[in-house]
Formats: sequence, C-alpha cells, structure tokens
Amino acid sequence: MSKKKGSLLSYRPDIKVVDATIRDGGLVNDFHFKDEFIRDLYIANAEAGVDYMEFGYKASKDIFNESDFGPWKFCDEDSIRRIVGDNDTDMKISVMADVGRCNYKRDILPKSESVIDLVRIATYINTIPSAIHMIEHCHNLGYETTVNIMAISNAKEAEVSEALELIGQSPVDGIYLVDSYGSLYMEQVDDLADKYLAMAEEHGKFVGIHAHNNQQLAFANTITALTRGVSYLDATASGMGRGAGNCSTEQLLGFLKNPKYSIIPILKFLEKHIEPLKKEGVVWGYNIPYLLTGQMNRHPRSAIAATKQERTDYLNFYLELNDKD
Amino acid sequence: MSKKKGSLLSYRPDIKVVDATIRDGGLVNDFHFKDEFIRDLYIANAEAGVDYMEFGYKASKDIFNESDFGPWKFCDEDSIRRIVGDNDTDMKISVMADVGRCNYKRDILPKSESVIDLVRIATYINTIPSAIHMIEHCHNLGYETTVNIMAISNAKEAEVSEALELIGQSPVDGIYLVDSYGSLYMEQVDDLADKYLAMAEEHGKFVGIHAHNNQQLAFANTITALTRGVSYLDATASGMGRGAGNCSTEQLLGFLKNPKYSIIPILKFLEKHIEPLKKEGVVWGYNIPYLLTGQMNRHPRSAIAATKQERTDYLNFYLELNDKD
Repeated sequence: MSKKKGSLLSYRPDIKVVDATIRDGGLVNDFHFKDEFIRDLYIANAEAGVDYMEFGYKASKDIFNESDFGPWKFCDEDSIRRIVGDNDTDMKISVMADVGRCNYKRDILPKSESVIDLVRIATYINTIPSAIHMIEHCHNLGYETTVNIMAISNAKEAEVSEALELIGQSPVDGIYLVDSYGSLYMEQVDDLADKYLAMAEEHGKFVGIHAHNNQQLAFANTITALTRGVSYLDATASGMGRGAGNCSTEQLLGFLKNPKYSIIPILKFLEKHIEPLKKEGVVWGYNIPYLLTGQMNRHPRSAIAATKQERTDYLNFYLELNDKD
Repeated sequence: MSKKKGSLLSYRPDIKVVDATIRDGGLVNDFHFKDEFIRDLYIANAEAGVDYMEFGYKASKDIFNESDFGPWKFCDEDSIRRIVGDNDTDMKISVMADVGRCNYKRDILPKSESVIDLVRIATYINTIPSAIHMIEHCHNLGYETTVNIMAISNAKEAEVSEALELIGQSPVDGIYLVDSYGSLYMEQVDDLADKYLAMAEEHGKFVGIHAHNNQQLAFANTITALTRGVSYLDATASGMGRGAGNCSTEQLLGFLKNPKYSIIPILKFLEKHIEPLKKEGVVWGYNIPYLLTGQMNRHPRSAIAATKQERTDYLNFYLELNDKD
C-alpha cells in the first residue's frame, strides 16, 4: 500500500493525456459533430499539449447503419484526414475498436497507409481471447495498441487475474483500467491499479485509466490512479461522455504539473463549442439517477433513460433499481 | 502514510454525519427558506440517521440587518423551537457562530434553556485566540463545541501547528478541517487529516471535515478524510452550499456502511424541495469558474459573481484571476 510516484509538485514525464471527447461524447449525440467542432478540438488539444486524441470508433458498417450516425462512429481514414491531413502535430491519433463490433481485418489499414497511431481495443472480460486476436492483428499492422477491459467492477478477482495473465503474454502496449459504471471508490482504484501495474511492470507495458463521473469521482479516481503509477489518463472536454460523463480535460490539465500542458486552449474550446452544444440540448453529466446506478454498481442505461425523460421521482427510480435483482 | 481505519465493507461507529444544508445553503439564498422546507429537512435527516442538523448561524443583529435575511442567519431559540419543539429525536441540533460576527455573551443562552446541542465556532487562523474565548464560553454554558478553522489551504504549516497546539489546550470537543476554497487534493487531505488527528488523539478530541466542491472533490475528500480517521462528516442535501457547494448527503449516505443510515428520506426531500428550489432559480454547484478558483486556491467570490452574471467567457475569467496577483 501507499507506494506513490511523485508528489503534488513533481511531474512525471511518463504521463500521457488522452482526449476521448469525440469517442465517449459521441455516445451522447450519435457522433453528430460538426467538422468545425472536431477541427477546433484537434487544434485545442494539440495546443494544450494533449498527447493523444481519439476520433471515435472503428465500428463495422455491416452491423451499424451508416445513416444513423455521424462519421466518427466509423472513423474512415478519409474522415480523419479531412480534419488532420497528415497530422503535422506532436499529438497522436487514436481510435477505439470494440470486440465483436469491428471488422478489423477489413477496416483497419496497415499503419503505413493510415494517419492513426493507436488502436484501443475495448473488451469485456469474457471476450479477452478475441481481444487478443485483435491486438495481435493491429500490432502486426504496425499500430500502438491498448486493451480496455470494461465493466471491471463486476468481474471476479480471479477472472481479472487470469485476464491480466493472458494480456501480459500479448504484444499489447498498454492496459486500461475502465470504470464503466462510475462505481469505483479511490480505495478500489488503488487496489486495481496496483494489480494492473504489477502485471504491466513484469511485461514492460503501461497502464491507463478511463473513469466515469456517476459519483463525481472521475477526476478523483483519475488522479488517484496517477499517484499510484498509472500513466495514460483519459479525459474529455467538459467531461462530455456517456451518461454522467468522464474526467474533464480542464480538471486534469489544471492539476498536472508537467509544463507542456496548458488549460488555456481548452477554456477557449469550451466557450466556443461546448456551451453552444449544451444550449442545443445535448445533455451529459452528474445527476441523482447516475449517482444511484453508480452506488449500486449498475450499467447506467436506466439512468440515461431517466435523464432523457427528465425524471425527478428519485425515490421511485431508486426502488425500481432495487427491484431488478 | 496509509494507516487506514476500516475497509469499504466495515463501518465505524464513531462516524457522525452533520447536515449543514440550512447553514451553508443559506449563503446561497440569504437564509430565505420556507418553514416547510426546514421542517421536512429536519424530519428527513432524523429518518435518514443523520447525527446533527445545523440550523444556521448565530449572527449578531447589531452587525447584520434582520430584514435582509431569513431567520436562520440568527437562529433565535424561538425560530428553532418553532420547527423542532423540544427536539424529540435522536438527532442533535447545531448552530455556527463566526468569530467577530456573533455577540455570543448575549445571544447564546445557557444550554439548560436551549434546544441547541452543538455550537460550531468558525474562525480564521489569525483569530484563534478569540475563537478560544468563544469555545470556553460555550463550553461553560454546557454545549458541545467544535472549532472550524477556515481557509486552511492558505495558512502556513507552522501557523497550523501553532493553532492546533493552542486548540489542543482548550476544552473544545472537535476540530474541523475546512476546505473553504475547494482547492485541496486528496493527498493534502491525507496530510492535514494526519496532522489534525495527531493533535486530536493526544488531547481526546475528534476531527471533522467540511469540504467544498469547486474541483468536484468534495465527496472524494470527505471519504478520504473518513478513511484516515476523521469522524464528523459535513454534508448538505444536493450539495447545497456557497458557490460550488458541498459534499452531498446523498453521496455520503450511499457510501457509508453503517446500518443506521438510509438514503431514502433524503431522496424524497430532494424531489419535494430541492428540485422546486432549483426551478425557482436558486443556483449552486460545480462549474468552470469555481473549478478555476479552486485550482488557483482562491476565495470563490469572483466565481460567484461570474456565475450570477452567467459568464461563459472562461478564458477572460481565467486571465482576470491571474491578473490579481
């Protein structure tokens, strides 16, 4: 317990900030972002010193109807290049590929033909073997890879250990601790981070964290993991993301002491793009239903529905949640 | 480092939840609460297992104009008794008295004539000697007392040590760690809690925490302090409190494992009273200006003004904050 990397005044050169605004925020508006939004976010992130910007999912058009979504559900090479050209910045480009929802053999080009740097493979614990196939494929194509094990708060300890063991043997570069339900407390993040880091250090990999804000702990859990030794930190502008959203970029950049980071471009972006988006009625962020699904370690889908219906009958909602068992 | 009291599944019988909704929330609406609001909150808190309910301030009517505020700025004995009678519940009644703003020799009755149980004395670090006079006076009148040292994030370490030493010699029952500016991170709470607890244990006193939510860390800091051994935990319904508000009662009760606590009465209260209050336009809670004053360890007054003006020119606000140095 309580080994720590660095203090509040030190900074860690191993830290990487990963902006996931389009990818996780796209779950709020079905990826219907204007190009100007994406382009200004790209510029803001690059100026702010953000290390990776995730443009969206590599979802299969065999499974998802193209007309139901904006282009960032699919992240065609042309879509990304329309924004970034050859990406003449120090910031790297990431996409997420879900196990079972991505035709990766067809849709992921060799790295030499793509402006994408990092493919993040999202998996549940029971689909780790498929995830490892995807990791190997993407690694062989020349990409950096991470594996993001979702819904970890519902997995058994022995399953997590076995999953980490399998992943340790794979060529993946990093493994992500993902608090899908926003249910983890800092003590649990400490313990999980130690477990992930032990495997990672043994196999020369890094660890990342992707937190959700159901209990207003996304930022707290992110800096807790950071203090523990986790180095890839997901954040989104204004915390935009599914349900209660994520750790916000402005919280994180205001905390990090690494002189390369600046909050200023993000503040400008919030003014220009996030405020209008909220005014249009795009809704995310902490509320009581999300708090309750987080406390009960449940998928936020019922809270998303309650939020859409603007429900404030909190007691009924609470009783319904308890009834589902 | 990292001594901990209890685990996530244990509960600590020493924990006391202190509802400060009227007192800190009163700073948002100048204490203009309807009696029904206060009465329903009193009933909800008692049913929820809350240990103390703070009714407001004991402010001097020589200093503050009675017509400018609701009755909870002054907490006359009659006002409290109008709600609680002789307080026939297990919950205790608290008021706050600010050093320099309370005519305590005149306005605080002997305990035998009052339904109040606890007087919390709020002080800055430079007025500790006056605070000690008030502590002694209230202690001699028969009350439980705490001292709440505000704006601790701006105090020097040597000053804090000296203050704790003086307080240790006083008859005060408890000492509060107060994050007035919402600027503390969990690591700092760990260190301060250890410091306060060392003094407290030496002198047979307890430690409490009062957190603010400028960086969305009020709940995180509260449970961090709790894990460290702090036992009096301030919370407010829906986090209602000055500026970015506080740790919310619903977050805290959903976390605590002590079987005496129930979130249900609070959820009912939120539905019935907090939602309508928000619809009336009473505003509190996290936003970007509060985040920035929190990050910079500043008094939230400029962020309160920005919120009132509904400013979203975040970059200008940030630059103005930096200009004040």
